[in-house]
Amino acid sequence: METWDAIRARRNVRQYTDEPIPDEALERILEAARISPSGGNQQRWDFVVVTDRQTLKELAKVWPQGGTHIASSAATVVLVLPVEEELRPRLIDNYDLGQATMNMMLAAADLGIGSGHSAATEQDLARKLLGLPQDRYVAYMIGFGYPADRPLKPLKKPNRRDFDDVIHRERW
Amino acid sequence: METWDAIRARRNVRQYTDEPIPDEALERILEAARISPSGGNQQRWDFVVVTDRQTLKELAKVWPQGGTHIASSAATVVLVLPVEEELRPRLIDNYDLGQATMNMMLAAADLGIGSGHSAATEQDLARKLLGLPQDRYVAYMIGFGYPADRPLKPLKKPNRRDFDDVIHRERW
Repeated sequence: METWDAIRARRNVRQYTDEPIPDEALERILEAARISPSGGNQQRWDFVVVTDRQTLKELAKVWPQGGTHIASSAATVVLVLPVEEELRPRLIDNYDLGQATMNMMLAAADLGIGSGHSAATEQDLARKLLGLPQDRYVAYMIGFGYPADRPLKPLKKPNRRDFDDVIHRERW
Repeated sequence: METWDAIRARRNVRQYTDEPIPDEALERILEAARISPSGGNQQRWDFVVVTDRQTLKELAKVWPQGGTHIASSAATVVLVLPVEEELRPRLIDNYDLGQATMNMMLAAADLGIGSGHSAATEQDLARKLLGLPQDRYVAYMIGFGYPADRPLKPLKKPNRRDFDDVIHRERW
């Protein structure tokens, strides 16, 4: 898919078909995460990819308020960060994960694969399920799968603030 | 450009030619920021696009340690956030800006336009230059321009941690 089409076709997908994601497609999504830029190229991240149905069902409980789509995803990528007390590296870590997230989501959209964000609040459960060391935690999770509703194609009217409201020319 | 090529071609570009970015290309980069996803679709961001050479030279001083490429960029997009005391929304704001950043960088790479990150430490200067209200600050800046070194094309060996080091299968 052309890049500009993929950027406009990406949308939150939280209902997935039963179709698994081919290995080659999943490798490409993970490679997109790996090659993302990060502050000082520090790559202070790890990615755990989960496809086991039972684990996915348990992972969905890591964000009880909004992670139900993780249970039915074909694959979920868990975004892991080091536990960090200082504010500035925490902010940059989150910024960098946002970059990796979008790189993965666009690599997926290019292949017709939908994606949906999840937060992570139940850290003890996450650590137990994934065997994470105590000095790591789950920052976000991204569910992937083929959309159950309709194929991805460029959105005509995304639900966003108006261009002239959000974009300022030369100064505020 | 195909999406997967754009993802692999994006790299930090900090040396730009004198060629201006056509209006249509700049609009597309900004539209990519506008349509990016954000937590709860809150879009707690604003984007100030600067092309005036004198302002760009001054903006470069907003990050004296590493923002020199802003001065010679054809255009710089300034990523603005609300001043926020609470940790959790700050983290999500940064994550969301990371997503918007990558959307812009890939929209640019698709058009052969390079991009380079800058932090922002001199907030008083930034507010004065851009006329920002006191309840906003500059979180990051992204410089854009045509690469002075070589055209963008998919990188064969990006300087990153090995795939098997950063990617974990099913569990840590």
